[in-house]
Amino acid sequence: MEKRYLFTPGPTPVPPEVLAAMAEPIVHHRGPDFRGIYERTLGRLKEVFRTPDDVLVFSASGTGAMESAVDNLAAPGDRVAVVSHGSFGDRWIAICERHGLDVQAIKYEWGEVPDPDEIGAAVRDAGVELVFCQHSDTSTGVVSDVRRVKEAVGDATLVVDAVSSLGAVPLEMGEWGIDVVVSGSQKALMCPPGIGVVGVAAKTWDRVRQSRSFYFDWTATKKAQDKLDAAFTPAVSLLRGLDVAMGMLLDDGLDAAFERHLKLGRAARAGVKAMGLELFSPDDDSSAVVTAIRAPEGVDSDVLLKHLRDRHGVTLAPGQGALKGKVFRIGHIGWFDVFDIAAALAAVELSLTELGADIERGVAVPQAFEAFEQPVHA
Amino acid sequence: MEKRYLFTPGPTPVPPEVLAAMAEPIVHHRGPDFRGIYERTLGRLKEVFRTPDDVLVFSASGTGAMESAVDNLAAPGDRVAVVSHGSFGDRWIAICERHGLDVQAIKYEWGEVPDPDEIGAAVRDAGVELVFCQHSDTSTGVVSDVRRVKEAVGDATLVVDAVSSLGAVPLEMGEWGIDVVVSGSQKALMCPPGIGVVGVAAKTWDRVRQSRSFYFDWTATKKAQDKLDAAFTPAVSLLRGLDVAMGMLLDDGLDAAFERHLKLGRAARAGVKAMGLELFSPDDDSSAVVTAIRAPEGVDSDVLLKHLRDRHGVTLAPGQGALKGKVFRIGHIGWFDVFDIAAALAAVELSLTELGADIERGVAVPQAFEAFEQPVHA
Repeated sequence: MEKRYLFTPGPTPVPPEVLAAMAEPIVHHRGPDFRGIYERTLGRLKEVFRTPDDVLVFSASGTGAMESAVDNLAAPGDRVAVVSHGSFGDRWIAICERHGLDVQAIKYEWGEVPDPDEIGAAVRDAGVELVFCQHSDTSTGVVSDVRRVKEAVGDATLVVDAVSSLGAVPLEMGEWGIDVVVSGSQKALMCPPGIGVVGVAAKTWDRVRQSRSFYFDWTATKKAQDKLDAAFTPAVSLLRGLDVAMGMLLDDGLDAAFERHLKLGRAARAGVKAMGLELFSPDDDSSAVVTAIRAPEGVDSDVLLKHLRDRHGVTLAPGQGALKGKVFRIGHIGWFDVFDIAAALAAVELSLTELGADIERGVAVPQAFEAFEQPVHA
Repeated sequence: MEKRYLFTPGPTPVPPEVLAAMAEPIVHHRGPDFRGIYERTLGRLKEVFRTPDDVLVFSASGTGAMESAVDNLAAPGDRVAVVSHGSFGDRWIAICERHGLDVQAIKYEWGEVPDPDEIGAAVRDAGVELVFCQHSDTSTGVVSDVRRVKEAVGDATLVVDAVSSLGAVPLEMGEWGIDVVVSGSQKALMCPPGIGVVGVAAKTWDRVRQSRSFYFDWTATKKAQDKLDAAFTPAVSLLRGLDVAMGMLLDDGLDAAFERHLKLGRAARAGVKAMGLELFSPDDDSSAVVTAIRAPEGVDSDVLLKHLRDRHGVTLAPGQGALKGKVFRIGHIGWFDVFDIAAALAAVELSLTELGADIERGVAVPQAFEAFEQPVHA
């Protein structure tokens, strides 16, 4: 009965209230018992996306929701731009290439923050009308300024992957005029994985084509949702959970969630630096989703993670791609508060000591608390 | 707190043990806590499919799993055959057409049982090498003899939609040489909706092409599963539930489940006929998944269903397509036993009486019990 601690950026811990909702009896998806839940869930999604327009719901992971955007907005041979600054940017490229698109990749080093003006210029130079990007790339902890990206690309359709940022970092889909936002249930929305969601601005429908996919067809999905129906049997239990989770999020207020995540990021960075470790993710308030940390000299980060997990029951996330063995990541999205940061930092400190690393002890947690207490707007 | 009764052929009622598993804490999909569950789930799926080969797992509804077969086995312009004898046969046609296939439809009236020899001849005449069909078409209750269909189509690749039949009606994927079997979590597998599963026979891999879908890519999915990994974040809570549900099914034995479903079908038909109602689904032991019943003269079946639900909290399924208003359906797959049949029949009898229909009262339930008690092999 060793207690487990999950500090990864997805799946994230799920509140007991949401887990309990998942265990409620199955209701038929076309009956009145489900319709109430469904209507409320669709309404709450709009509030979380901060859009007056449709948020489409798919039984799928975030990648399925990403692919739906490619399926419904582009046809083979179309020239599109992808901004890539991490593992999930590369995923956009892989999906677009699978669909036979002519991909103009706007690449940044992993860990680098994309420059909106450069993106705008590249999009104009390439003459593309469809741009894919990440809000937060979970592999590096970098959060991109998608408001400025949208301003820079102008009339081009901008599709933002907000799988790990929605509900954690401000994203004003309506006010900023973002055309499409893709997300998933298992990050800041505090639910188990299995639901992909896609916000589609009203203006975007003019650019929606006949989907090549039957399952991910936006037009059929919208038509069903408009009648409070679903095109295919929806994941009723996951949707019950999502309803409860979004209720908790919205009761507290989205702005409070944004502020909490910003302060959690500050606390994590302050603790990491106090220990004498080097940050991989940017050392500023944009890093509110996940903190990526370089393993100290002589320590393989995968060995550290295995030690944390096998010896102490604590799960953090590894470095991906070229960062494997070099970086580890503390996720702090969703059902997280400052004492989770304290526990994660304490576990890292203890484990690094046990592995013989030369780090400062006893200072990380107090520094984290101090950073957390600072006013957001200094 | 009116008690609800769900007697639909999907979603079906889920055992409390499975619901409780859904409420267990979230584990990371790449950690050892999940790997044990995942390995056991993948093994149990093979037992349920009765195949030594791979069963691929997708976070999707059954329709997503169906589309994955089209994506991975055919390319635009390919000539394929679809056997259609109900709503889900029409869905195969719609998916194939969406993918630009040249569809040779082998159509039967809804309620008619497909003839394997006719199918074999049609497939040879059309010169197709890929055939899609249903095992059970839930819209009509007709179960097709897919063993004989496979014999009749010979070397052509046969893709069987067993969404509503897997675990309820004998389907020996290995022994019968079926190439591909598609199913979903929310029917006889006694889970909430959200997991699509696809059994792919070893011999079929030679015919698998480059998937046009990134999300539904069989090759990438197999490659990940071979390492006990998943291509994308899997629906860990649903998989926990599926693990428990299949454990219950296999502890009792698949053959016991097949026998129970056969007897549930007999009980439902005996009760329906005793009331003086007319069956729409075939009056034989093939009808083990869902019993489709014609509404009596002067009663709209949708009015009956609304009455059952609003007055008594009992949910049955409506007629689909041209059968709307004329037919209603009692599902008896998964977490069902004979007292559920008794409750469903009693509720129909009471409601029809309340709606003024002239039916025989008090005989349906005793007749159902009597039919249920008969030996399976008389």
